[in-house]
Amino acid sequence: MPDDRKLMIAVVGAGKCSKKLRDMAAVVGKYVAEQGGILVCGGMGGIMEGAARGAKEAGGITIGILPTGDKADANEYIDYAIPTGFGEARNIMVVRTADAVVAFPGKYGTLSEMAFALHAGKPLIAVNAWRLGDEIVQVDDPLEAAKRAMELAAKGK
Amino acid sequence: MPDDRKLMIAVVGAGKCSKKLRDMAAVVGKYVAEQGGILVCGGMGGIMEGAARGAKEAGGITIGILPTGDKADANEYIDYAIPTGFGEARNIMVVRTADAVVAFPGKYGTLSEMAFALHAGKPLIAVNAWRLGDEIVQVDDPLEAAKRAMELAAKGK
Amino acid sequence: MPDDRKLMIAVVGAGKCSKKLRDMAAVVGKYVAEQGGILVCGGMGGIMEGAARGAKEAGGITIGILPTGDKADANEYIDYAIPTGFGEARNIMVVRTADAVVAFPGKYGTLSEMAFALHAGKPLIAVNAWRLGDEIVQVDDPLEAAKRAMELAAKGK
Amino acid sequence: MPDDRKLMIAVVGAGKCSKKLRDMAAVVGKYVAEQGGILVCGGMGGIMEGAARGAKEAGGITIGILPTGDKADANEYIDYAIPTGFGEARNIMVVRTADAVVAFPGKYGTLSEMAFALHAGKPLIAVNAWRLGDEIVQVDDPLEAAKRAMELAAKGK
Repeated sequence: MPDDRKLMIAVVGAGKCSKKLRDMAAVVGKYVAEQGGILVCGGMGGIMEGAARGAKEAGGITIGILPTGDKADANEYIDYAIPTGFGEARNIMVVRTADAVVAFPGKYGTLSEMAFALHAGKPLIAVNAWRLGDEIVQVDDPLEAAKRAMELAAKGK
Repeated sequence: MPDDRKLMIAVVGAGKCSKKLRDMAAVVGKYVAEQGGILVCGGMGGIMEGAARGAKEAGGITIGILPTGDKADANEYIDYAIPTGFGEARNIMVVRTADAVVAFPGKYGTLSEMAFALHAGKPLIAVNAWRLGDEIVQVDDPLEAAKRAMELAAKGK
Repeated sequence: MPDDRKLMIAVVGAGKCSKKLRDMAAVVGKYVAEQGGILVCGGMGGIMEGAARGAKEAGGITIGILPTGDKADANEYIDYAIPTGFGEARNIMVVRTADAVVAFPGKYGTLSEMAFALHAGKPLIAVNAWRLGDEIVQVDDPLEAAKRAMELAAKGK
Repeated sequence: MPDDRKLMIAVVGAGKCSKKLRDMAAVVGKYVAEQGGILVCGGMGGIMEGAARGAKEAGGITIGILPTGDKADANEYIDYAIPTGFGEARNIMVVRTADAVVAFPGKYGTLSEMAFALHAGKPLIAVNAWRLGDEIVQVDDPLEAAKRAMELAAKGK
């Protein structure tokens, strides 16, 4: 890797969610982009789409690691789609690609991503998501989540 | 699949654990084998080894889906080793192969397997494992866990 | 693994093929089962189904490592279905599980399995399949292929 | 995906090779970058490193889809590393991510990538690589390979 590589922040959460939650995810994407980070996600709808939209609105770069094998399935805010064809197992790659992970509410797919983030020792910031233990930074505000994610990513790089 | 295929029960949990926990896992393996079920696990040590040992002591059959690409890494009680080389992503396959999943205490790898079991809609019985919600059957006794697993597996087959 | 574990022979080839080719694959499955080996395949139709049928007709045991995540997709001769959900990537696992691989004619999926067998250093016997180099044992007769596969598997175990 | 997404060209080949071959791979990377394409590869050494270097020297963007789970394993010319932890199975993702694939000489790992490219119906240009059939565009000159790859990628997009 180049020495000056950019920080990569993953945003995970439900593939279908309210507009309010999508907008909260967009706040994270926007801040990451403004600070020069790369937004990584699962490339589909809901939280993933919100986060990617926020990053693109701030002129940032987005990577979507898709469950399907077809890049046409990526949402419209994804610059670089990685169509894995590996289904839910792609969650592991989303987490491994990230320097820090921000989790929004989601069901068991999100829970598995949080579990893998903890397993991989990645900083994990939860915005009203699953409460799994003290290793997770719990916050209510998405901007606060984004700031903590960038800080912790920089520390661990 | 043949119409009379055998029920497959996965046992998941820590790769390193106390003798007491290994023996509890062996109780599940033994019951599954006695009832004609197949014991599926991740093929490594700890809970996985205990469960496989219990199944073999009762004359049963065991399948180990390994994280590594080398079948020599399987514990000595595994009849059929599937060396995936896919690391933790093999957890997903353990769960998909099973008709029901019994979870023992474990860290975040186990949590991810429980998350995938719930995601895949598989019956999940937890023996003092992560408490994640009402869809999980919580028990203290491994024999009770094994009985519930075989019952729920038969129902869902 | 137990010291006396059984040899595992993978049969790979087209998912759709003529009755003649299915019957040739069945000859391999039958011989493997008669000699106490386990038949491993991708669990679907064509060559895979022929090989599994041959093994079952001789009272043997069959393992099918499926591309889909649903074990109901396995052919009717599969005893133990491993529903991976990893699509074509499951070919790698078929090869890794085997002690030797017998390849029948097939298109590029089969070619990838042959490539992975060579990459993994597994003995590879081709029955009128892709001619890729001197490391492959080329034969015309399926019984000859089965014999060579069991011999080479025993040597490499 | 955005309507104006950039073309992605994968370069595959040996992880260790002569300087001459690395320089040939760099010619492909350079042309792809000059034409506004994205260079995709397996992120490691040899051909992959040569191709990524060429792209970076022309101010382009590079994506490396790694076999390991650690992004520190990427070569120094990779902008965006995807550490899969899936070993050789990541070859499938390299191919799926690409709009066209350029293959240089390599052993069986490269053969498997070519097989997957053909299986996935991706345009495949071989520079003195495995000769597998008429669907492959065979060339001797890397610049010619790069031009054909960009053309065929644009057609298939």
